[in-house]
Amino acid sequence: MRVFIAGIDGYLGWPLAIYLSAHGHHVAGADLLLRRKWVAEVGGVSAQPIASREERLRAFEDAFGRSLDFRVGDLTDYGFVKDLFRDFQPEAVVHLGQMPSAPYSMIDQAHCVWTQQNNVVNNLNLLWAIQEVAPDAHLVKLGTMGEYGTPNVAIPEGFFEVEFRGRVDRLPFPRQAGSWYHQSKVHDSHNTHFASKIWGLRATDIMQGVVFGTRIYEMGDDLRLRSRIDFDQCFGTAINRFCCQAVIGHPLTLFGLGKQKRGFLPLKDSMTCLRLAIENPPEKGEYRVFNQFENAYTVTELALMVRAVAADIGIAAEIRQYENPRAEMEEHYYQPDRQRLVDLGYEPTGDIKSVMKEMMLDLLENRDRIEAHADVLIPDIRWEGGRRRSRVIG
Amino acid sequence: MRVFIAGIDGYLGWPLAIYLSAHGHHVAGADLLLRRKWVAEVGGVSAQPIASREERLRAFEDAFGRSLDFRVGDLTDYGFVKDLFRDFQPEAVVHLGQMPSAPYSMIDQAHCVWTQQNNVVNNLNLLWAIQEVAPDAHLVKLGTMGEYGTPNVAIPEGFFEVEFRGRVDRLPFPRQAGSWYHQSKVHDSHNTHFASKIWGLRATDIMQGVVFGTRIYEMGDDLRLRSRIDFDQCFGTAINRFCCQAVIGHPLTLFGLGKQKRGFLPLKDSMTCLRLAIENPPEKGEYRVFNQFENAYTVTELALMVRAVAADIGIAAEIRQYENPRAEMEEHYYQPDRQRLVDLGYEPTGDIKSVMKEMMLDLLENRDRIEAHADVLIPDIRWEGGRRRSRVIG
Repeated sequence: MRVFIAGIDGYLGWPLAIYLSAHGHHVAGADLLLRRKWVAEVGGVSAQPIASREERLRAFEDAFGRSLDFRVGDLTDYGFVKDLFRDFQPEAVVHLGQMPSAPYSMIDQAHCVWTQQNNVVNNLNLLWAIQEVAPDAHLVKLGTMGEYGTPNVAIPEGFFEVEFRGRVDRLPFPRQAGSWYHQSKVHDSHNTHFASKIWGLRATDIMQGVVFGTRIYEMGDDLRLRSRIDFDQCFGTAINRFCCQAVIGHPLTLFGLGKQKRGFLPLKDSMTCLRLAIENPPEKGEYRVFNQFENAYTVTELALMVRAVAADIGIAAEIRQYENPRAEMEEHYYQPDRQRLVDLGYEPTGDIKSVMKEMMLDLLENRDRIEAHADVLIPDIRWEGGRRRSRVIG
Repeated sequence: MRVFIAGIDGYLGWPLAIYLSAHGHHVAGADLLLRRKWVAEVGGVSAQPIASREERLRAFEDAFGRSLDFRVGDLTDYGFVKDLFRDFQPEAVVHLGQMPSAPYSMIDQAHCVWTQQNNVVNNLNLLWAIQEVAPDAHLVKLGTMGEYGTPNVAIPEGFFEVEFRGRVDRLPFPRQAGSWYHQSKVHDSHNTHFASKIWGLRATDIMQGVVFGTRIYEMGDDLRLRSRIDFDQCFGTAINRFCCQAVIGHPLTLFGLGKQKRGFLPLKDSMTCLRLAIENPPEKGEYRVFNQFENAYTVTELALMVRAVAADIGIAAEIRQYENPRAEMEEHYYQPDRQRLVDLGYEPTGDIKSVMKEMMLDLLENRDRIEAHADVLIPDIRWEGGRRRSRVIG
């Protein structure tokens, strides 16, 4: 299948290009290479060294015997997007080309506005370009489980049937996102749903959990194919950060009580799920929502797992509570559905400790890089505004 | 009270400046004067002649014996907004400064993207400027009843208590907006709600029905104070268009079956409701939603009322069905709540026929202006894309 990846240079976009190519799909993509700049802006670095775009292109050619159409450009420029789609005629468009960090969007007015403008406009451009140039293409839009927030009822996959004052309707499940970034994804979900109604767009809106992992099998031993892995407060996510902290002997950083529960999934499960969504497109006009995660865990459960795995390889990891820089519930009900991808054949990894072990072994080789940037491990971007480094509270 | 009006030159902003001033409030405002340009862009004109900004300022001074701080500037420019708030120190901010037309947002990619970018960014800027410069100020944000769409259950005021799989929660009522413009208002509602959570913002999110009317009592006889009234397919709304059509002997234009039901309210009721919201601010951190309309009517009911009123003043008005350019249900359940403003003292007009009569008498004096632009009465902007003039179907 002809698959266009928006954001092909990113944490998920690059592995997906390799994974789909290894599974026989014809991939092209675009990226403005901003992720590399954002991480530098907040003082971070990828724990694993990553190849430049040019090196990635050569490695791709070495691995697959053909060149990769990976263009540098801005998805908020509609002419750029339309030309891409005219040239490539995608059958599926995977939208990973957005600013993906909650804390980054909370820095100040400029970061908030830029995040929403960039994400909302580039998603609108993809919707319009599909409609105008490739109307049969299937949009696989990366949303996030964070769009739902933490309601006190179960979280269905996008829609629920409710009775209200004696009448029944199937309604979109309300979104209660917890950052300007997460709000931008909610806006995208609404816009994408609307496009499916007026234009007959085929759309899969993926509410993805938090991804972790340093590699996928399809990368083989070529280090130039490896994925980035961030550990700063903005672009590092929970398990990735815990593993990076463990290998340099830094305490694992829980925020507040540490009982926040979220959906998580290994990088390889993300790839499998995206492939299943792509290979099983919806009907014309269908807007479907998949909740995509391996399982739901509290961050304390995850920290304990990372500590246990670290102990197995001879590392003593400590767990500490820090002031929570976010406005969020630290203990709450959380029961999200995750059935539609299973119905398409997704078999959740189950043993995530083996993934954690693989990660830590990869990361041990890069301790110097993490240690050199260890000051980005403690958050200081605060949800109520301003910056103040979180203190240890337990 | 010190009230800042964003969009002070518009259909609601200008009357509100007069109304609040007449009720003892200290008003200031800003506008980029875009409404005048948009209406010209789509070939329309205000049926009532409206004064220039300079004439409006002179008329305001003549009426109230003081000058009006009405600045020309762009609310998407954060520096402009922040300076305004620093200078004026508002206690309430009424946000009417957005692109308000569904069809205009549906013209093409450029109009869609511009609408969402303009509306979302300028609302974010107001949120940030309140937080950074006037954190106790109360934001009165104009949303629209159109954010809800037409669900098959009653429409509460913003939130509802639902039972789902045996558990109960109070959730935001899902939004199912029917145009790119309406979606922009949904995005604003989400952003505003979030700001109230993280910053303790006081916010009233007004889900307003469709406003109609040519004047308010407080304008007196000074023609320079009169409001604009549009009748083109983009900026003209149902009753305003019907009245304009009636006075030039054009058929009243129903779209499709004409059984679409919506909330409507006279201009004077809108002013009363906004004053009640302003004079009764919410607590710090409270985000409240008011559904604001006089009553719900089908467009056919309204057309029949306009026809009856026209007959009273000697005009024979015909009602015709045209192809519906929109993707919308033409017959549906509609039961929105409207209690919170009544609890604050709002007494709905009740006799809207007398408002229609007042309008038609005003409009009769401007028949030439409407006749000269009669080609904008039939819609051609289509929800599925492209432009095609709607044909008569009944």
